[in-house]
Amino acid sequence: MLDSHAAGPGGTLGTLFAIGGAEAKLRRRTVLRAFLAAAGGSQARIVVVPSASSLGPEVVEVYEAVFSTLGAASVVSARPESRADARDPELVALLDDATGVFMTGGNQLKLSNFIIGTPFADAVHAAYQRGAAVGGTSAGASIVAEHMIAFGSGGSTPKQRMSQLSVGLGLLRGVVIDQHFEQRNRYGRLLSLVAQSPSLLGIGVDEDTAAMVRHGDQLEVVGRGAVTIIDGSHLVSNAYAAKRTAPLLVSGARIHVLPAGSRFDLSRRVLVEEAEPLPDAELADVRAAESDLRGLARDIAAEGVSPTNYARHLRRTRPS
Amino acid sequence: MLDSHAAGPGGTLGTLFAIGGAEAKLRRRTVLRAFLAAAGGSQARIVVVPSASSLGPEVVEVYEAVFSTLGAASVVSARPESRADARDPELVALLDDATGVFMTGGNQLKLSNFIIGTPFADAVHAAYQRGAAVGGTSAGASIVAEHMIAFGSGGSTPKQRMSQLSVGLGLLRGVVIDQHFEQRNRYGRLLSLVAQSPSLLGIGVDEDTAAMVRHGDQLEVVGRGAVTIIDGSHLVSNAYAAKRTAPLLVSGARIHVLPAGSRFDLSRRVLVEEAEPLPDAELADVRAAESDLRGLARDIAAEGVSPTNYARHLRRTRPS
Repeated sequence: MLDSHAAGPGGTLGTLFAIGGAEAKLRRRTVLRAFLAAAGGSQARIVVVPSASSLGPEVVEVYEAVFSTLGAASVVSARPESRADARDPELVALLDDATGVFMTGGNQLKLSNFIIGTPFADAVHAAYQRGAAVGGTSAGASIVAEHMIAFGSGGSTPKQRMSQLSVGLGLLRGVVIDQHFEQRNRYGRLLSLVAQSPSLLGIGVDEDTAAMVRHGDQLEVVGRGAVTIIDGSHLVSNAYAAKRTAPLLVSGARIHVLPAGSRFDLSRRVLVEEAEPLPDAELADVRAAESDLRGLARDIAAEGVSPTNYARHLRRTRPS
Repeated sequence: MLDSHAAGPGGTLGTLFAIGGAEAKLRRRTVLRAFLAAAGGSQARIVVVPSASSLGPEVVEVYEAVFSTLGAASVVSARPESRADARDPELVALLDDATGVFMTGGNQLKLSNFIIGTPFADAVHAAYQRGAAVGGTSAGASIVAEHMIAFGSGGSTPKQRMSQLSVGLGLLRGVVIDQHFEQRNRYGRLLSLVAQSPSLLGIGVDEDTAAMVRHGDQLEVVGRGAVTIIDGSHLVSNAYAAKRTAPLLVSGARIHVLPAGSRFDLSRRVLVEEAEPLPDAELADVRAAESDLRGLARDIAAEGVSPTNYARHLRRTRPS
């Protein structure tokens, strides 16, 4: 289903990060720690791309401070502010040895306008192909996918014309990513896009939460909230006929809400279920039972298989 | 799946109404018209039950005015304000010849506390069994189901302990109904209840919209918004293990968003798909083609089957 990029010659795909915005920068920093780890930890050379932001240098300073505090080897900023910038060899060269490319929040349409189809975007792809951690938060998350939510309105019920698609970086194909998912009530707009394009997998990421994708299609959730996946493969919709801003019929969409630690196969579109660890109390019971069984086996071996001998042995050695 | 009440002896089940709140009372009044029609139109004898409300007589006056304006034969109010009231034979007798029972919005836990398990509730059931329209708006919608959302908090992501279930009237079994669904961002709380009880069908109703159920399980949507149905039959969840207020894993829930006119079979849990009417332009084309074909058939009959004669005939009669 998912047509992800294969790794380049001799390369290993890196880890993609789609962060739902408002990731913790002061205390726990679970999400940013995960990004740094995927970028090489103490060896990480991180390039922050703040083009989506309307803030000045301070947006970069925050990430520089966080990643440096957490132990990155280097943190620099590359800020194309036009398509001409994004063709400037000097600016593009900043990405050459990056092990992590972090795109900040802001306006994803601004970011995509400046970089998509330019050597800068090619360099981001190349970094991903050689194993870098690539992604970002909010706007920087949406742009990772092939199809990008440009903007839209909130609300639970999908309606015609409530959201606009445009072209994203395409690091993750067959996918559309929305952010601030729970906080801004974006079920409706994500459902409306999947209703119009049922082949798409809609991925909604809560704030302070990341959809982390390894090997091109193995998603794992990190952070405080959840990642919601809408699979339209089996849906029936009237999206091709609904008028103006009418509510859309969307029947048979499959929903997966995935909290931290959950894993999901984007190609097969299924939860990766893991053997569940037993609660401690239950574990102690099982161990005691195992130990009894081992004792019993020893007893049987020692006493031979005669039931009479065995019963006599038990009377001698065990409390009643 | 759905264990609805069968019709009583000699009776026909009435129509259930779960209205998502804030139904139009002045202009279109689509939802209240549909209720009145199901209650018998100009023959309708409607009992308004305002016990959930914290308002005084004015809440009844509004519905009296609307239903009277729309042509109901009679509109009266029955307002139990305690379980003792709900056992008062005089109050209960008001429901005896009702063809419509309309429960207002307010606090559903107040309404359910006063009436469930009392002769008043029995009389509501009896009215439904003999064919009356029964239901209400907001609180009056939630109480229709067997399992009732008592209260909860908003948000898209399902979390442990974000909502409370209590006992509803049970006119619709195997179901839990939430209201103000889109307007108050209630995906999370409905998903959390279905995750904890996957046998339940979660029904979320938008404002100024009704889930109208005939024959015990045939749902049809009326009004401005949509009805969202969450089917947990195939889901995987960690709801039995999630701690405190953690986001819940809910994988494989099936979602149906149904705008006005959509129909859904609650027992089979499937959309009832209807042959789609052709758009007018396309219809005109098809009719023209049919007419051409009829002309052609007449030509062939008149001229015999000789291709030579037929070609000559065409040259004579048709513009080139």
